[in-house]
Amino acid sequence: MRFRTLAWKGNYLELIDQTLLPGKAVYLKCRNAEDAWKAIRTMKVRGAPAIGVAAAFGVYLGVMRLRTEDIRKFRSEFAKTAKYMASARPTARNLFSAVEAMEEVVKSFNGRSTELLKKALLKKAVEFAKQDEELCRAIGRHGAKLFKSGDCVLTHCNAGALATAGMGTALSVIYSARRAGKKIEMIASETRPFLQGARLTAWELKENGVPVTLICDSMVGSVMRAGRINRVIVGADRIAANGDTANKIGTYQVAELARIHKIPFYVAAPSTTFDFSLKTGKEIPIEVRDGKEVYQAFSRPTAPKGVRIFNPAFDVTPAHLITAIITEKGVSRPPYQKSLARFGRAASGGLKRSGLASGRARLRRG
Amino acid sequence: MRFRTLAWKGNYLELIDQTLLPGKAVYLKCRNAEDAWKAIRTMKVRGAPAIGVAAAFGVYLGVMRLRTEDIRKFRSEFAKTAKYMASARPTARNLFSAVEAMEEVVKSFNGRSTELLKKALLKKAVEFAKQDEELCRAIGRHGAKLFKSGDCVLTHCNAGALATAGMGTALSVIYSARRAGKKIEMIASETRPFLQGARLTAWELKENGVPVTLICDSMVGSVMRAGRINRVIVGADRIAANGDTANKIGTYQVAELARIHKIPFYVAAPSTTFDFSLKTGKEIPIEVRDGKEVYQAFSRPTAPKGVRIFNPAFDVTPAHLITAIITEKGVSRPPYQKSLARFGRAASGGLKRSGLASGRARLRRG
Repeated sequence: MRFRTLAWKGNYLELIDQTLLPGKAVYLKCRNAEDAWKAIRTMKVRGAPAIGVAAAFGVYLGVMRLRTEDIRKFRSEFAKTAKYMASARPTARNLFSAVEAMEEVVKSFNGRSTELLKKALLKKAVEFAKQDEELCRAIGRHGAKLFKSGDCVLTHCNAGALATAGMGTALSVIYSARRAGKKIEMIASETRPFLQGARLTAWELKENGVPVTLICDSMVGSVMRAGRINRVIVGADRIAANGDTANKIGTYQVAELARIHKIPFYVAAPSTTFDFSLKTGKEIPIEVRDGKEVYQAFSRPTAPKGVRIFNPAFDVTPAHLITAIITEKGVSRPPYQKSLARFGRAASGGLKRSGLASGRARLRRG
Repeated sequence: MRFRTLAWKGNYLELIDQTLLPGKAVYLKCRNAEDAWKAIRTMKVRGAPAIGVAAAFGVYLGVMRLRTEDIRKFRSEFAKTAKYMASARPTARNLFSAVEAMEEVVKSFNGRSTELLKKALLKKAVEFAKQDEELCRAIGRHGAKLFKSGDCVLTHCNAGALATAGMGTALSVIYSARRAGKKIEMIASETRPFLQGARLTAWELKENGVPVTLICDSMVGSVMRAGRINRVIVGADRIAANGDTANKIGTYQVAELARIHKIPFYVAAPSTTFDFSLKTGKEIPIEVRDGKEVYQAFSRPTAPKGVRIFNPAFDVTPAHLITAIITEKGVSRPPYQKSLARFGRAASGGLKRSGLASGRARLRRG
């Protein structure tokens, strides 16, 4: 990668500010929990795995400067920070996986020294980031087998290096396949309202020498019908036990269009994205963001003042539209109920749910 | 209507500049054929029927100042202007219908006075605009019957007053239904890249007191799945003999998504949009516009410099996805081969094809 999405710098977390790409590559310093929370909330860092890593460090940053020797007080401050960090965004499972991993460190800590506990927390956050890099590599390795020379692959949103601490999830598969000599071309859908496809995926692929064509979200069906796309791969923000997958708004319709045009539709995600506590995607809380992002995120106003705007940030793709889910453990095929359980339990099943992830769904079906 | 899309002002054509909406309502003066051609090409005036009306006046403007008494010279200059005007954009049938209507005036003119011929041409252009207003009203009247109180209707792009010399095509139906006391709410999809839904439809509906919610094109499937849309209505740029309909890019996928979610999908268009010389939509030339519209139409750059962009301006919705086509003659149902012929021939069948409409297709299906 020719850039670094996030890195721990001894006493602060450094992030590339994704709201300024592709115009400028500006690195932000998060020096406390608020900085990290804000960076997540305002999507300066985004992408489920990257959010998870940022949150792990964010939790550590929240207690790093605590000057108490009182372990009970420390634990109670930690709990507040963890809860606060988990409130940054509601949909990505990885945010909660990260916070829960940090909570586990505190829970299982037997000592009395708050300084030692701090050290253990930092170690865990660093591990979490490292693990994410490894997950990306493994996803790339498993997924690459599904792609062949000559493929023209659509991806929606950004599930690349910019969405993780490593090579990405969906894009890691593409990078791996290309490294294996397969000639693969990409089509990036713009991904309104935040334009992750245009601003991030197109930029990242170009930086890494992958041929990419940008289209608007409105063009996906038409370009599929023209026979120009033969594979789709996307990331995920949360995957329910049955395989229903929450991902960037627009993913659902891309999946339906892929089915109609008989194009395989792949999801690539680490097991930290799985949420076995949810039976189906209907239970996944869907964040609804400010209409401003539609109205004026990157430009002069593009809609009349005061117009009502509905701006859900994610949607749920039902499992029956997903050809396969590529994880760090291998390629999971339907029925997902079974195949995901096999892949997922080992990585995330051991963690007790903390109840932090119960954000309210503001969009519910019918 | 609280604004006027286009109006003849004695010796120039006045247009509301649709590239500046909703920020500013600026009226442009087209004083010659070049002005009109440019306004059409750069989408300062857009929407198939409005393009037709602008082109009819544009052709007249091209010969208005010709100082020759030589009728043969006049005819030859006219032919050049007509050809030029028809080259402004390739997809909308109405552009060619308008130019052909003007050509018919010249062809059927028996006199020797170029001044009289000029007068006849102006009269035809004025008539063409009036006719468009009437077509809009009639479409509204016929279509309104298909809608009921409580409907929440999605429209893509702008097929409203801003797209015609009258009340619009698709939106005329909504205005009519509401005037008849039916409580109808609208959802406007943003319509990238040119944002006609956000900038024009949302503005026009607000101006006319119709409740409207704006969503991104990527949200259509998800909002349908949530059960929030129970009708779709769009306009058309060209309708082939079998009912295949070219309309703004994105229409095709909206139609597929409507079918999946069992939502009726209506097309509203005057018979000037029909092209019986084309058996199916495969023959409709699809304009591909500059990638700049995706990259930087309304904002600072939203994609990396030099990225390849594909920017088709229209797509074709196959007839089998269309529940009904609403025309000024009534509601046409499948099979369209038969029903359209019945409705259409009277209005446009008499005109000989001039060959002007044979713009090259730059996007052809795989």
